[in-house]
Amino acid sequence: MKARIHVFLKPGVLDPQGAAVAGVLKTMGYSEVTEARQGKLIELELSGDDKAAAAARVKEMCDKLLANPVIENFTVEID
Amino acid sequence: MKARIHVFLKPGVLDPQGAAVAGVLKTMGYSEVTEARQGKLIELELSGDDKAAAAARVKEMCDKLLANPVIENFTVEID
Repeated sequence: MKARIHVFLKPGVLDPQGAAVAGVLKTMGYSEVTEARQGKLIELELSGDDKAAAAARVKEMCDKLLANPVIENFTVEID
Repeated sequence: MKARIHVFLKPGVLDPQGAAVAGVLKTMGYSEVTEARQGKLIELELSGDDKAAAAARVKEMCDKLLANPVIENFTVEID
């Protein structure tokens, strides 16, 4: 079973990496870029086959370790 | 228009961040985690409405800046 976790900054939180990416792309001539935001995508291989239980456990992993609840949101997909 | 770029390490390339995530999760008691891999997800806001042209330009941005072709693969989605 695979879990795909997308961790990204909450709207309104300053995203220095995203701002840097947008700035460099504009300097390189890609003027169509108006904004950039950068997040993390974490893929976990999980043993077992109970998707509901896995989703709950992965959410717990995000709350405890993988995402900073103050400034980040996350989504979990179980394949 | 929004472009979603997923940059991730090529199979076989050592992923120290992923290994660290897997190790800590196991230490925390999540023994069902057998492997973890961590990539970047970059979201770009683009002006214009030609999706095909945007996809080509974004691929070019990845080749030139956003992905390291030696160790990384990337996928591009245009919404």
